[in-house]
Amino acid sequence: MVLDANWIVGFVDGEGCFHVGISENTQMKVGKQVLCEFVVTQHIRNLSVLYALKKSMQNIGVVRKKRKTYQFRVRKLSELYQVVLPFFEKHNLKTDKNIDFLGFRDVVHLMFRGEHLTSEGFEKIKSIQSRMNRRRFGVENSLE
Amino acid sequence: MVLDANWIVGFVDGEGCFHVGISENTQMKVGKQVLCEFVVTQHIRNLSVLYALKKSMQNIGVVRKKRKTYQFRVRKLSELYQVVLPFFEKHNLKTDKNIDFLGFRDVVHLMFRGEHLTSEGFEKIKSIQSRMNRRRFGVENSLE
Repeated sequence: MVLDANWIVGFVDGEGCFHVGISENTQMKVGKQVLCEFVVTQHIRNLSVLYALKKSMQNIGVVRKKRKTYQFRVRKLSELYQVVLPFFEKHNLKTDKNIDFLGFRDVVHLMFRGEHLTSEGFEKIKSIQSRMNRRRFGVENSLE
Repeated sequence: MVLDANWIVGFVDGEGCFHVGISENTQMKVGKQVLCEFVVTQHIRNLSVLYALKKSMQNIGVVRKKRKTYQFRVRKLSELYQVVLPFFEKHNLKTDKNIDFLGFRDVVHLMFRGEHLTSEGFEKIKSIQSRMNRRRFGVENSLE
């Protein structure tokens, strides 16, 4: 199944998530670890759509079961930087999910330059994250 | 905002619903009333997207508040028959929502021919409806 770029944007506007997660990690200099992920979640009925999505996005990411659902997810910084960001810069999201994308993009840029390893860079990321996703609406936003 | 047809299909694959509702109505010969609706629901944040959707689909339907959300919804049989069906026949849905669309299309065709007013036609509609939407997965499917 070949997916049109505009279809992908529409589907991601509905079902996608640009997520910045921060977790404790004492091995890191700043004591925290940052994880960026782009995720699309579906019922097993639409597993083939998730694989088509992966294929249509230069075969990046993985398709994985998560509890009772399936996810196409991209976590590799290089894949986010080289494929996901340019894709959604070229094909703009139409819903307010674009606000999340812009924050996500800023965090990926900071991480690509290694700034998440410094206290100053980490604070910048925390500040961006606080304005993203459901945090804007008072819902917790941690990665599981 | 001009919405590309493929974006619309992707967004509807994620957020749209093709709904056939049956309710009691003693004024009807068969004692029941059939209502078909195509709906896209969003948070108020994306109200402009719902209006863009309406505009991009030949300005059919209405945008209405429903509880805490907003809906772009089309219920008029003529609009469903003349705009919604041809649109999704030309631009195929990629997820299993297409199964719902095909059932929905059959019901709209039956209603357009007035067959929902006969017992035989009504039974056909009931049979199609039973295979649609979340009914397939054991969830009730009544119109509110």
